Amino acid sequence: MSRLSGFPEFLPAERNAELIVLDHLRRVFELHGFSSIETRSAEPMEQLTRKGEIDKEVYVLRRLQAGEGDSDSGLGLHFDLTVPFARYVLENAGKLEFPFRRYQIQKVWRGERPQEGRFREFTQADIDIVAKDELPFHFDVEIAQVMAEAMSGLPVPALTLQINNRKILEGFYLGLGVGDPAAVMRIVDKLDKLPGDKVLELLGTDGGLTTDQAEKCLALAQISAPDSSFVEQVRALGVEHELLDTGLAELAEVIDSVTSSGSVTVVADLRIARGLDYYTGTVFETQMAGFEHLGSICSGGRYDQLASDGKNTYPGVGISLGVSRLLVPLITKHGLVADRSVPSTVLVALVDEESRALSMETAQKLRARGIPTEVAASAQKFGKQIRYAERRGIPFVWFPPVGDANHGVRDIRTANQVDADPDTWNPPTEDLTPNILRTPSKEQLT
Amino acid sequence: MSRLSGFPEFLPAERNAELIVLDHLRRVFELHGFSSIETRSAEPMEQLTRKGEIDKEVYVLRRLQAGEGDSDSGLGLHFDLTVPFARYVLENAGKLEFPFRRYQIQKVWRGERPQEGRFREFTQADIDIVAKDELPFHFDVEIAQVMAEAMSGLPVPALTLQINNRKILEGFYLGLGVGDPAAVMRIVDKLDKLPGDKVLELLGTDGGLTTDQAEKCLALAQISAPDSSFVEQVRALGVEHELLDTGLAELAEVIDSVTSSGSVTVVADLRIARGLDYYTGTVFETQMAGFEHLGSICSGGRYDQLASDGKNTYPGVGISLGVSRLLVPLITKHGLVADRSVPSTVLVALVDEESRALSMETAQKLRARGIPTEVAASAQKFGKQIRYAERRGIPFVWFPPVGDANHGVRDIRTANQVDADPDTWNPPTEDLTPNILRTPSKEQLT
Repeated sequence: MSRLSGFPEFLPAERNAELIVLDHLRRVFELHGFSSIETRSAEPMEQLTRKGEIDKEVYVLRRLQAGEGDSDSGLGLHFDLTVPFARYVLENAGKLEFPFRRYQIQKVWRGERPQEGRFREFTQADIDIVAKDELPFHFDVEIAQVMAEAMSGLPVPALTLQINNRKILEGFYLGLGVGDPAAVMRIVDKLDKLPGDKVLELLGTDGGLTTDQAEKCLALAQISAPDSSFVEQVRALGVEHELLDTGLAELAEVIDSVTSSGSVTVVADLRIARGLDYYTGTVFETQMAGFEHLGSICSGGRYDQLASDGKNTYPGVGISLGVSRLLVPLITKHGLVADRSVPSTVLVALVDEESRALSMETAQKLRARGIPTEVAASAQKFGKQIRYAERRGIPFVWFPPVGDANHGVRDIRTANQVDADPDTWNPPTEDLTPNILRTPSKEQLT
Repeated sequence: MSRLSGFPEFLPAERNAELIVLDHLRRVFELHGFSSIETRSAEPMEQLTRKGEIDKEVYVLRRLQAGEGDSDSGLGLHFDLTVPFARYVLENAGKLEFPFRRYQIQKVWRGERPQEGRFREFTQADIDIVAKDELPFHFDVEIAQVMAEAMSGLPVPALTLQINNRKILEGFYLGLGVGDPAAVMRIVDKLDKLPGDKVLELLGTDGGLTTDQAEKCLALAQISAPDSSFVEQVRALGVEHELLDTGLAELAEVIDSVTSSGSVTVVADLRIARGLDYYTGTVFETQMAGFEHLGSICSGGRYDQLASDGKNTYPGVGISLGVSRLLVPLITKHGLVADRSVPSTVLVALVDEESRALSMETAQKLRARGIPTEVAASAQKFGKQIRYAERRGIPFVWFPPVGDANHGVRDIRTANQVDADPDTWNPPTEDLTPNILRTPSKEQLT
């Protein structure tokens, strides 16, 4: 039986590492007041194919017994969480409270060719804030702060959250006298794959810019700073436009408000444009050190028209973390894993099969106080029962009393054993749940 | 835009009720040492169609751009969590520790006609214990105990966990001299839909039984007891067989070990057979009071051959809770809902837009101590900000100081307001997370 390419699956200790990450993300999102929603996995095909670009990657659903002549069900699996969210907002607009903060952690599917960092089934974690008609700018700041805080607690290599503002690019190009700013943006966006002088050439040949215009566009894209000093660098290029001013003020406010911490460094990076997407202001991308070839692992931005029903418009700002894109390579190739394959903190040993009731009762006393506990499967020699715990990463083995003896509990990592009462004993708090055993270091990654 | 029949979706306060249920299930499963796993949503069609019965309900996947002549991808969405789990166990047998306890809470899909309690996309919560070659009987007891404990904490109408043992049925039929026990089981299983005298008739005409045999089979199926008194009732029918003895002893042990508590009543019910399935011993079904028309909402049993690779056999015992089947009618028709549409415990009010930084800082102090907090979207009059909290079900509004005043916090349910320090104030523990607002009572259900 062979594994299915593009459909990652984890062993239990790997899954525990993923759960630690998912629980952490949920915790941060909820601390900031984001509501959980889930949308159905399938959407009508006309909903999914509205954005031309991604058509080819949709999985269409057909009922097996639909009959030979019947066409498909008209449904496809969602390929992101933004299209279903926009549909959900419109469908429930009368019942939602705006501004509506939501997080959504769900699987999505794309029928594309599997390769590193690209899967056919994968998990995304999105946060968005959506309003009716108008969404104040301070929500751009909030989205960046929340996702930076969420990412800073992840057991992953260093992350760089790169922030830009489309108003800077558009305003700069307009101030330069460029006729088609969108075309210039598309060319500059190729700096990912092409060297600077090639992009400079394209700006002349395909973008129709003068050498001076092209050089200034390239110079703008090369500006990057960890603070608002980027504003002076842009000003030094001598271009003026009202939209540029707005963009510079917005980006400076985001950069000044979002703190680098933990594994996350925040920078203004004026190369970021988010391609052809529907973003209208702030835009985000994120690189993971040693994994730049994966592309951005957390992206998003401001879109002034997430959805519209003709009467009302719903502007939003959001950001999407590629949980699988981040974790699958770290887990499957670089040893990111939890210290246990089970949730259990304690294994209650079994003296003999006749005393199973005593072991079960002891376990239930520990569980009643929130301590995950399992009972040994069979009454093997204690040495074997300890190895049973060791193989699963269970830190404590509990020995029920034989005759007049007391209950005892052993930390099998230190072999330290003490008498204990199942109604009062507590493990150290950090042993109550699985923990990350290894975080890949930079050395392991190269 | 119309909703898709068979693909349930929840509003945020409904989703919070579902999350309370899912978190509770996970908590109980983990307290008992069950490991979380997730399997991919798609399986090869030959894997899914191995059990003939369910063929017609599979959703087949096709890539949109696969080309007109191309056939399907060979993949279908899983229709339960047992088939994928069996495949996962075989595929990873060398890396798993047996006996392997796992829980799996995931969506499954069936392309069937939507009707009450039947969905095209729905969530199941499964627990199973699987061993290599041999699985001692005490695991049957454990599975029943864990799921009974999990169900007893659910905010739902009264549940009856009905337990039987296939060995009783088979042994009894063999002891009676019945030639084809499986055929008799299939007929007796119709007691759900047909009256007793009709079943009696069928046992004669289709089952080929004498009147005496048929009456005894029917009498057996009508035995039900909340304790091991069922053994005497079976004995009184005067049938003897070794397999019957084993079955009676096993069922008596399960019934004596699993306690009725909370909303769950445990009974031995000798009518339960789990149809044509692959069960070989203990079998479970569960009825919800007032929702008997939904059928069993939690079912399972012992299967001596979950999987086999020719060399090793993997026996198991498991039970599957239909989370959507249970919750969707309660939520969408009977008002089961959480008391908030957001996770937030506190709304920090905004004095004016200039002091947003102070409100944000105050919120961050509360979050740092684990209190979910959001900041008001705009500096409306305080009365409007309080109504903003009310509409979302946020219990506390925090007022940052104006001038020399102190911070203050108001419980908007009582209008009680006190001075408070954002570095030390704590809400009552039960207000830290959403709670179930309404549990449908028996009156509401009829």
